[in-house]
Amino acid sequence: MSRQRAGLGTNQEAVRRHNLGTLLRHVHRAGHISRAELTSMMGLNRSTIAGLVAELESLGVTERALPVGARQGAGRPSAGVALADNGPYVIAVDLGVDRAAVARVGLGGVVQQRTEAPIDGGGGEAWQVGASVAALIRGVVEGAPAAAPLVGIGVSVPGLVRRSDGLIRLAPNLEWHDVSFGSIVLAALGLDIPVSIANDADLGALAEHQRGAGVGIDDLIYVSGNVGVGAGVITGGHRLQGAGGYAGELGHLRFNPQGRPCHCGNLGCWETEVGAHAIAEAIHCPADKVAQLGEVLGGFDKPTRELRATGTALGHGLASIVNAFNPRLVVLGGYFRSLFMLVGAEVNAGLADRALPAPLESVTLALPGLGEDSVLLGAAEIAFEPLFVDPVAALGNALVDVRSRLAG
Amino acid sequence: MSRQRAGLGTNQEAVRRHNLGTLLRHVHRAGHISRAELTSMMGLNRSTIAGLVAELESLGVTERALPVGARQGAGRPSAGVALADNGPYVIAVDLGVDRAAVARVGLGGVVQQRTEAPIDGGGGEAWQVGASVAALIRGVVEGAPAAAPLVGIGVSVPGLVRRSDGLIRLAPNLEWHDVSFGSIVLAALGLDIPVSIANDADLGALAEHQRGAGVGIDDLIYVSGNVGVGAGVITGGHRLQGAGGYAGELGHLRFNPQGRPCHCGNLGCWETEVGAHAIAEAIHCPADKVAQLGEVLGGFDKPTRELRATGTALGHGLASIVNAFNPRLVVLGGYFRSLFMLVGAEVNAGLADRALPAPLESVTLALPGLGEDSVLLGAAEIAFEPLFVDPVAALGNALVDVRSRLAG
Ligand SMILES: [Zn+2]
Ligand SMILES: [Zn+2]
Repeated sequence: MSRQRAGLGTNQEAVRRHNLGTLLRHVHRAGHISRAELTSMMGLNRSTIAGLVAELESLGVTERALPVGARQGAGRPSAGVALADNGPYVIAVDLGVDRAAVARVGLGGVVQQRTEAPIDGGGGEAWQVGASVAALIRGVVEGAPAAAPLVGIGVSVPGLVRRSDGLIRLAPNLEWHDVSFGSIVLAALGLDIPVSIANDADLGALAEHQRGAGVGIDDLIYVSGNVGVGAGVITGGHRLQGAGGYAGELGHLRFNPQGRPCHCGNLGCWETEVGAHAIAEAIHCPADKVAQLGEVLGGFDKPTRELRATGTALGHGLASIVNAFNPRLVVLGGYFRSLFMLVGAEVNAGLADRALPAPLESVTLALPGLGEDSVLLGAAEIAFEPLFVDPVAALGNALVDVRSRLAG
Repeated sequence: MSRQRAGLGTNQEAVRRHNLGTLLRHVHRAGHISRAELTSMMGLNRSTIAGLVAELESLGVTERALPVGARQGAGRPSAGVALADNGPYVIAVDLGVDRAAVARVGLGGVVQQRTEAPIDGGGGEAWQVGASVAALIRGVVEGAPAAAPLVGIGVSVPGLVRRSDGLIRLAPNLEWHDVSFGSIVLAALGLDIPVSIANDADLGALAEHQRGAGVGIDDLIYVSGNVGVGAGVITGGHRLQGAGGYAGELGHLRFNPQGRPCHCGNLGCWETEVGAHAIAEAIHCPADKVAQLGEVLGGFDKPTRELRATGTALGHGLASIVNAFNPRLVVLGGYFRSLFMLVGAEVNAGLADRALPAPLESVTLALPGLGEDSVLLGAAEIAFEPLFVDPVAALGNALVDVRSRLAG
């Protein structure tokens, strides 16, 4: 009987922490929300919500705010909940082939500080890249308030990441095989903090769904041109990860079996027609500019014949994707963003020409709502995730006064 | 305060019905299960489980059973829960291009009676097909015990089905556009009963995941050769449906843009290389046998050169699918089952040659665990679904003594 009770008590505590995390997730998404909205969204009564809000305030995560959206004649407006100044933050890292962007990001997806630098990804060893990234992280942590807790680090990589432990199985354009990049970065920093790693397009999809072009859309695909071509898929509101975490390798869909060799060993993968090297060749872009293809494309004021053909090939490949996944929205990220701005008509025509009518009729192609920061903000999201699962435990593991620890 | 309490009471009733349905789902999956297992699987205490079990017994759905799996020295074995005789049943319909299979299926996926007949799908109107299906349904309902409640009808169709209302948007090989087949069948039967309709491959995936080759495997794809080629995808344990319910149209993945015309308007879709018409042509199978390709292939005792080439093309297409979805298991249904038995080595080699190493290393190709009945049992699963959401409501809507209603 006493064991039964203890079990029940533990279960209640788990439920309370789960509710605490869910409430925080709502505030994180909305930025500023009323208690009445929280009561209705969470299906809990007002006193339970009040207790949870009080606990988040005492943890220094949220603070009381002026009422939001008080409607006329709706009685006393409900008190608001807002994110606290000096609240928990994460470090987001967007590792590219030739540069890394690093940001300090607060709850609500607020970029507090951001830096970017070239890295020698194509030729450098993983530990050298890790040291460069660690230096960028030190830079953005410098400015953090001493009392603000660092919850974790989220890293985006252009490659296949094993879901179980974040091992980078293959990052073709970095020429990495089986690299445990999280440990490398922690070793270079000398910090013990959770690190989450995921594929760049998967993170782009996550962020666009959370706070970009795909808010409220539960079936979306983020297709990214980023030297290689990859995709992140949200289906039924959840990330499509697959058995190992490798789902979404749409750059290697068979496209033209009489085509060019792909680094994966096949002939004519979609990436060989719409990847950065193919487009660079088509527009006579020098090889050392391939990694900045988005900027190069941004310099065109009208499309050439070659770019129009690339747009059509992009649309034809998207048709296979639309037939396979039936998304409501396809977000075109990386340099596809610039390409779509130039040859959107060709992309849409290529898609319409090849997709089945039923999935075609409800799909829209769109630019990222977060501009060039989708992937970086997605990296922040996975770093925050433990905080929404159990805020008490995550804050217990968080580091305060990180600057002095880094100096030591 | 009284409103708050009323809300709580309604909520508790909803939770109780949800638990009742979940418990029944466990018994349905396991067939025979102990109360101790239910207690541990559902995280509820013993007295709550006992109350739920008593309610299902009083509803005539389950009955007391001898203890199962009593381990030595583990104390008094826990009482078992088994499915009741004369319990609720559904009608499952597997509508093919040239024939329909209809079964009366009880909880636990038990086929109680089954019939099959040719239908004139290629030339007949939808209402004629509906009348034929209704006659088959009458046949299997005849033998049902008068007291057993009919919960609903589940129908599999080889086509694109709109998730919101079950409208068949396109069934190319039946030449149907926008057909509300559920209403047609109900009109022919003169019964008012829930009808659920879904794509055949989606239902094959569902049934193989529930009780076939994919039990316990949360990322699997059922790829079916069934005149056309389609797929059903389970990801993270859930059906991948897409925005409208049309996901999984993998037969129209681009495969060979210099290839043959496909009925969808494109050139060289995967279906034009591994679909029934392509294989029939390769093996000189007469046109009127195309719909029985599985049986025709079953008659070969060794593969021809043409069949080996088809096996390689099947493997090459599966590589795109493995790269896109990263499944743990791919189940080959329809006539792919017979083809895989003949040229499994070529299929596996084609896959290994083209898939990326990371998703390749954990995937297995397999035959259906349910033989030729995956799709039929999947149709039964969707018909039972309302019973697992709310058994009380579903049994309230169910029909008893259906035979006399059909006679009247
Ligand atoms: Zn490739
Ligand atoms: Zn096609």
